[in-house]
Amino acid sequence: MDMHELTRELHTKNDAKVVMLVADGLGGLPIEPGGRTELETARTSNLDALAMRGVCGGSIPVKPGITPGSGPGHLGLFGYDPLKYRIGRGALEATGVGMEITDRDVAARCNFCTLDAEGRITDRRAGRIATEKSAPLAVKLRDIRIDGVEVFVEPVKEHRFVVMFRGEGLGGNVADTDPQATGVPPLAPVAHDERSKKTAAVAAQFIEAARKLLADQPQANGLTMRGFSAHPELPSYDEVYGLRAAAIAVYPMYKGLARLVGMDVVGQAATLDEQIDVLTEHWDKYDFFFIHFKYTDSTGEDGNFDAKVAQIEAFDAVVPRVMKLGPTVTIVTGDHSTPSFLRSHSWHPVPTLLVSDCCRPDPCQSFGETACLGGGLGQFEAKYLMLLALSNAGRLAKFGA
Amino acid sequence: MDMHELTRELHTKNDAKVVMLVADGLGGLPIEPGGRTELETARTSNLDALAMRGVCGGSIPVKPGITPGSGPGHLGLFGYDPLKYRIGRGALEATGVGMEITDRDVAARCNFCTLDAEGRITDRRAGRIATEKSAPLAVKLRDIRIDGVEVFVEPVKEHRFVVMFRGEGLGGNVADTDPQATGVPPLAPVAHDERSKKTAAVAAQFIEAARKLLADQPQANGLTMRGFSAHPELPSYDEVYGLRAAAIAVYPMYKGLARLVGMDVVGQAATLDEQIDVLTEHWDKYDFFFIHFKYTDSTGEDGNFDAKVAQIEAFDAVVPRVMKLGPTVTIVTGDHSTPSFLRSHSWHPVPTLLVSDCCRPDPCQSFGETACLGGGLGQFEAKYLMLLALSNAGRLAKFGA
Repeated sequence: MDMHELTRELHTKNDAKVVMLVADGLGGLPIEPGGRTELETARTSNLDALAMRGVCGGSIPVKPGITPGSGPGHLGLFGYDPLKYRIGRGALEATGVGMEITDRDVAARCNFCTLDAEGRITDRRAGRIATEKSAPLAVKLRDIRIDGVEVFVEPVKEHRFVVMFRGEGLGGNVADTDPQATGVPPLAPVAHDERSKKTAAVAAQFIEAARKLLADQPQANGLTMRGFSAHPELPSYDEVYGLRAAAIAVYPMYKGLARLVGMDVVGQAATLDEQIDVLTEHWDKYDFFFIHFKYTDSTGEDGNFDAKVAQIEAFDAVVPRVMKLGPTVTIVTGDHSTPSFLRSHSWHPVPTLLVSDCCRPDPCQSFGETACLGGGLGQFEAKYLMLLALSNAGRLAKFGA
Repeated sequence: MDMHELTRELHTKNDAKVVMLVADGLGGLPIEPGGRTELETARTSNLDALAMRGVCGGSIPVKPGITPGSGPGHLGLFGYDPLKYRIGRGALEATGVGMEITDRDVAARCNFCTLDAEGRITDRRAGRIATEKSAPLAVKLRDIRIDGVEVFVEPVKEHRFVVMFRGEGLGGNVADTDPQATGVPPLAPVAHDERSKKTAAVAAQFIEAARKLLADQPQANGLTMRGFSAHPELPSYDEVYGLRAAAIAVYPMYKGLARLVGMDVVGQAATLDEQIDVLTEHWDKYDFFFIHFKYTDSTGEDGNFDAKVAQIEAFDAVVPRVMKLGPTVTIVTGDHSTPSFLRSHSWHPVPTLLVSDCCRPDPCQSFGETACLGGGLGQFEAKYLMLLALSNAGRLAKFGA
């Protein structure tokens, strides 16, 4: 049973405020046997104080052993079963750069690449071309006209851009054209179902037209497309939880994800401190705040243990500013683990804490992977976290008589 | 998958006896930061001794964060998925006052109320009229005759009574007539589906006839109906578990719930000691005993921490009498938590222990919320508890070859 069938029926309104602080890729691993994780190494007196007051546990992003991408990781935290709701990477990225994706649209992530004279890929990322050079090229591709569809192109960063086709009968099930190798040409777009044949044909026309427009480019004279995806059908936070929700994020993808579940993306912030400024400004206007901190993940992906420790400490440092606002429920978690040891996302449970006046305290005296094992939240699937947030906020009525 | 598909296939018979002691609303919260819960405060040497011998854990009544009513709370303990089986309040209350509800019946909870000369409610509970006065009025309503259906009326307590209609084609999907406000008249009964139109029409006739019979009453001259519900389809304990099961409860609702899953409600007991007398008398005739203790919940709902502590100690005191009978499996749990701090049911996991010759002991040295966090049962959904009861009783065969 979808938990939203319950929350729709049971949610109530009050003045409670819920803050969910998401340190991306928070969970880690020791780099040597018997060692401590990044979180356990970091000095986090503020998070430790919350762990003492609150209840801790381990969030399993999807199912044990499943490593999620950012999409499923966040959907789980937002209470949307990540096995039920699938968001294509293209749709996510499109939303993240502010494109309004509708149910007539299919989006794809694109990379500029370098092709040799025979059309074979020599660099899958066009030499990681600078954004100043690549962005005008993406804009140039807006000139492409295809019968029966509208074409939208947005630059992202370096070699990356997004293409979105709008029209009738566009399915999202088209295979990636990136061969994940050099020395071979990009693959042709192939539809995986009947509904997506038109999309594949449109994509092929787009690629052909783009090749002509880019022919004189030294680095970015070709492109690959991946993550084709139609608009995902996600019910909104307001509808399923009765929450006016705001997202405060720096990176486009997390803004995009929050928009897909109906959160307002508020403020312009480049640093964590600025994010808390935005939180403070919007405090009275929303019931729920999702605050996304990226750098615990990116340092983990770089395999930089010490840098991840430093980012966790930077994250810890803003906690008092959040608590000063007096949230009814404060949650600290991550969308998945990103151990520097693995230099990638992982399946390990994510240290999670929840503080409210009516959480049942547990023996946890600090915030870390091992301490959380003895915590009162136990190990739980991330998709249940929003139920706990609502009940601790007094916004969920009794189920049944 | 419904666990009953497994238990139907795997259950076996033997001479084992299973006792499930349910202290309603057992779980609690500290009333001050860093304090102990009610159960942790109570002196429970007998329960502590069981915790040392047995295995402990935390029972999640429905799903994390979901606060159950008594119906879903008990269905979970009985092994019936509370999200799959929904029992209407009317059906539950009817069964609880000893009405035999069949698949041709629809029951509703009714309140006597006070109406002014214009038919507007001035008191939704008829001044909480004394049972001595209200019971004869409910009995008087048995005189009402409606074409095509039989009418049954049973007094409950104070302003409350139950009405049950028996006949063909009566759906249970009718809206409450209680407007949840004073100064307005009761709502007319409205059917939510085609099958329930006859029920709504019958209810309207009943209300009209009742108004005439009650017209001269100073307090109870009107009524509201709510929780309309048809007979829930619950498979029996005998069918799904192969258990001859007996329920020993003081309060009607818990007797009713036990009857709905096919337990025999045995004995007449007003105190816990009398309940154990009944247990002793019926020891040889049943395989499974459900013993319900109400006052841990009612003291919690009163917000009376000390009284709940005292009730837990009273509950602890009868444990030796139960153990003297030599049950093969003894379970102590609750249907949900009722922290005095919240004065209501809550979502917090319920301390649970299981003792048998073949449970795997764990480090728990006492019975309490924090101790249970380190217990061998972990945190588990209540619906799995009956599987553990059966396996520890040697009544569940191997699954698969």
